[in-house]
Amino acid sequence: MAEDRDVQVHLLPSQVPSGGLAGGIAVVIDVLRATTTVVHALAAGATCVRPCAEVEEARELAGQMRVGRVVLGGERGGSPLPGFDVGNSPREYTAKVCKGNVIVLTTTNGTRALLRAAEAERVLVAAFVNYSAVCEQVRQDRRPVHIVCAGTDGEVSLEDTLLAGALVDCLSQACEVQLNDAARLAWDCFDNHGRVLQGALEVGKGGATLRRLGYDDDIKAAAQVDRFALVPELRRDPLRVEVGAVGIVKSHWPK
Amino acid sequence: MAEDRDVQVHLLPSQVPSGGLAGGIAVVIDVLRATTTVVHALAAGATCVRPCAEVEEARELAGQMRVGRVVLGGERGGSPLPGFDVGNSPREYTAKVCKGNVIVLTTTNGTRALLRAAEAERVLVAAFVNYSAVCEQVRQDRRPVHIVCAGTDGEVSLEDTLLAGALVDCLSQACEVQLNDAARLAWDCFDNHGRVLQGALEVGKGGATLRRLGYDDDIKAAAQVDRFALVPELRRDPLRVEVGAVGIVKSHWPK
Repeated sequence: MAEDRDVQVHLLPSQVPSGGLAGGIAVVIDVLRATTTVVHALAAGATCVRPCAEVEEARELAGQMRVGRVVLGGERGGSPLPGFDVGNSPREYTAKVCKGNVIVLTTTNGTRALLRAAEAERVLVAAFVNYSAVCEQVRQDRRPVHIVCAGTDGEVSLEDTLLAGALVDCLSQACEVQLNDAARLAWDCFDNHGRVLQGALEVGKGGATLRRLGYDDDIKAAAQVDRFALVPELRRDPLRVEVGAVGIVKSHWPK
Repeated sequence: MAEDRDVQVHLLPSQVPSGGLAGGIAVVIDVLRATTTVVHALAAGATCVRPCAEVEEARELAGQMRVGRVVLGGERGGSPLPGFDVGNSPREYTAKVCKGNVIVLTTTNGTRALLRAAEAERVLVAAFVNYSAVCEQVRQDRRPVHIVCAGTDGEVSLEDTLLAGALVDCLSQACEVQLNDAARLAWDCFDNHGRVLQGALEVGKGGATLRRLGYDDDIKAAAQVDRFALVPELRRDPLRVEVGAVGIVKSHWPK
């Protein structure tokens, strides 16, 4: 219990106060599915992920890049986009698709949250699949922490809040934390739903939409805690997500 | 377990989708302090509360009313307003101040939430001090339920979410409920913080501000579950809050 650390959760990108992330470390969460997919893509050997807010912007960017070295991926309303190489299923991002390639990605909620978080000094990408690796990076950092949840179509989401709470839980074991009210709500959510993770992912609005669209396996994939040991990190000029730190010393997920 | 009922929590007024309350019953919550104060004022004999979004609007409205029959109350940033008769402390709204009078009220968060909720077919005002009475009214109603939390200066608040969760908990015992993700978060919050109510009210941002301003007793007042048996209800033409139903058959607060 050394330092006293400011840990704020923002349940939606729109809840981040203007300029509020400056000087801090931001952790971006969109469990279903963008941040889970980013981890999968980098683990499968993609050189980087270029987040785009709009579909046309993604098409244009991909069009400027070397043929055979770029993969155009994304969704709107959960469904793949016409002319895109892949959708937003983490399972689509295999080594065959990703290895050595740049992924241009546009999604309804997640890539927007990532772009909103870009004003922070350091930006990490978190999912359940890289939970403990993210925990270790954030613990080692000294900056104020801002956990930015993507939510679902402008509404707060159970699964993003749950992961935010799991991060709050881990940080609170490492130091004295100063929490905002949203961080307390997230922590409560983790306390109650953390032990029934896959069920929680199924019951939320985002999970229900995926099940309706036949993406049940994506929910299972998103619930695989600590499947990967890498932490995607935002780099600039151009804005892109690459593999940052790699490695887990110990699992921080409660037994 | 008869009917299947839609129960949505909106953690902030800005989270209510446009037109989303039409045909429903809305329950407005601003525990610290507006909705607690409204219950106190009506219990003390005020004929009605006239909510105003802006300070000048409140001054003008009060100026048009019969001298000696109107009380001008409210706050900004927690502090009383110059020239106003009373602030926003529930304890100021005594029988001596309220009996037979109209209260014109403007507050930072609560009155705005109330005005936002006005598009619902029926609008109730809830606080911990009238929890079980509100529970019974909402249970007897058949409309979809929208619980609208005021929050604190545009941020979600622990105490409003906690009460929202307590209402979700009570409704879930009466019928099958269809919850949005925010309602699940609120329920988690109630599960974890409901048994340490006053502590929860003290630890949130709103409570911390009140303590800094010396309003510790207002927090205690807000934590008095079921002190009153009345449910304030919004009436129209002109827009005002009056005593609606009165009476508690049983306490719904967990022992």
